[in-house]
Amino acid sequence: MAIEALPEDPAEWRIAVVGSGAVGCYYGGRLARHGNRVRFLMRRDLEHVRAHGLDVRSCLGDFRVPEVEAFGSTEEMGAADVVLVTLKTTANGDLERLLPPLLHGGTRIVTLQNGLGNEEFLAERWGADRVLGGVCFTCINRTGSGRIEHTAQGAIAVGSLTEASAGEAVRFAGLCEAAGIECRVASSIAAVRWRKLVWNIPFNGLAIAGGGIDTSRILGEPALERLVRELMGEVIGAAERLGYPMAAGLIEDQLAATRTMAAYRPSSMIDYVEGREVEVESIWGEPARRAAAAGVAVPKLEMLYGLISGLVGLRRGT
Amino acid sequence: MAIEALPEDPAEWRIAVVGSGAVGCYYGGRLARHGNRVRFLMRRDLEHVRAHGLDVRSCLGDFRVPEVEAFGSTEEMGAADVVLVTLKTTANGDLERLLPPLLHGGTRIVTLQNGLGNEEFLAERWGADRVLGGVCFTCINRTGSGRIEHTAQGAIAVGSLTEASAGEAVRFAGLCEAAGIECRVASSIAAVRWRKLVWNIPFNGLAIAGGGIDTSRILGEPALERLVRELMGEVIGAAERLGYPMAAGLIEDQLAATRTMAAYRPSSMIDYVEGREVEVESIWGEPARRAAAAGVAVPKLEMLYGLISGLVGLRRGT
Repeated sequence: MAIEALPEDPAEWRIAVVGSGAVGCYYGGRLARHGNRVRFLMRRDLEHVRAHGLDVRSCLGDFRVPEVEAFGSTEEMGAADVVLVTLKTTANGDLERLLPPLLHGGTRIVTLQNGLGNEEFLAERWGADRVLGGVCFTCINRTGSGRIEHTAQGAIAVGSLTEASAGEAVRFAGLCEAAGIECRVASSIAAVRWRKLVWNIPFNGLAIAGGGIDTSRILGEPALERLVRELMGEVIGAAERLGYPMAAGLIEDQLAATRTMAAYRPSSMIDYVEGREVEVESIWGEPARRAAAAGVAVPKLEMLYGLISGLVGLRRGT
Repeated sequence: MAIEALPEDPAEWRIAVVGSGAVGCYYGGRLARHGNRVRFLMRRDLEHVRAHGLDVRSCLGDFRVPEVEAFGSTEEMGAADVVLVTLKTTANGDLERLLPPLLHGGTRIVTLQNGLGNEEFLAERWGADRVLGGVCFTCINRTGSGRIEHTAQGAIAVGSLTEASAGEAVRFAGLCEAAGIECRVASSIAAVRWRKLVWNIPFNGLAIAGGGIDTSRILGEPALERLVRELMGEVIGAAERLGYPMAAGLIEDQLAATRTMAAYRPSSMIDYVEGREVEVESIWGEPARRAAAAGVAVPKLEMLYGLISGLVGLRRGT
């Protein structure tokens, strides 16, 4: 059954945000502020946001969204044209229950989640034609109920998995741009994900393995900087074998960019030290498995995956 | 110049212990208690031990050595027939200054230190004919001034590097056995060292990488147990390529033995969490370099080496 087209004008799209953490509130908040029809699925901040709205401190300019359509269940939200999935990947299992009430014959599901495997998870259940992959390049944190802090960057890359949603990908990008969100359409969202992993795998991983250290401490310690380079080399090797060529000089460029970030705390490390779920499988496990399936040796990535799994398991046990 | 033979009866040997930490006090203490002529180089416990002697709690039976010949410098100690080197390997540089006053034409130097590179360090400076390698299989801790706790095992393996000291190795083993120290002569002390490293590399390393965890927590966490096996496999592969065949079933045997140890805290982990020097180079660095020189890929060992180096470096920097 062919998927239905969405209304030509994305300004008419009804948008549902599933997972109203920092990323969901930031991007959903920008769309709502611009006047788009956005409904948020919320849990802990539901009552606060209903009463007080969203308060966003952003490096691109602070703003408030006083009136927010926040709900406690997707049944109450009803059907949407675009579902932004911004749940943590460790909660993907919940989507089987959360998404069906939001879907009509043309609903597109846009995952803005981290790591690998999210598009595939959605495509297996609701069809590849429905799914758009999205990758965020940004630093956003929740600093309180309904309070979001956006400290750097903010761009999104988006791409469809099949031709059936290629037009929707372009129009979704236009919708974002109109609302002040830099958004480009990527010909291969998988390539974009691997490129982001070249950074996330070593930095998020060593920040945890180092007991909760920031990027400046990693790069200030020669043995750890060397591991960053070696891990990046493995990830690039895997990506290229899988058909996603990485730019020449990528390691040096990423290290230089990271040095400008000073004492940046990778999100997985914050999750780890604050006792929240860590996205172990999507950031380390799935890339390691895909590299192995493609016959690429990634022993240091495998070791980091094992170590992070172990550290997270130990924390859970205590 | 041929090295002189030592007196035929090892009971006549003058013994010097350089490095009076837990290992030096335990083995030196047993020899002294048996009536051997033992002098100790001491630093922080010097005055206490001179006044009160050594107090050893041992799983093989507690004992005291009330009169101990303790000195603050090797110049005061004078020449010895056997020098037991029980310094931490991170202090090997000090031996160039400490050892010369103890050496006569026939003095043998027995290193009871951890990891790789110690025999070579001594042989380069004072000749391979003088050097006996020793490996301790034991759990000993210093619990206070002049107080030692010996909680498990206690055996030594010893071996000469050249034929010139083969007889002394056998007589040294006899000296130990007479004093209640289980001691066997190994045909290849290097093989014994590698076998010990099969255990030390993963367990000491993951205990540190895990932020200070004991062996039961490592083996209780499946991802970490798997890393133990993978690291052991790499170390065994390197040892065998270097000409030291390891026993079949060694990994399973070591895991089973470790499970009987319950919540054992590896010595390097204790050093790490208590802010003391960690023997990074002898336990991880030198094995990684020798494997690489032999053309054996040990990527997980290299990663562990990098990570431990980094963690120790970070701690030093704070």
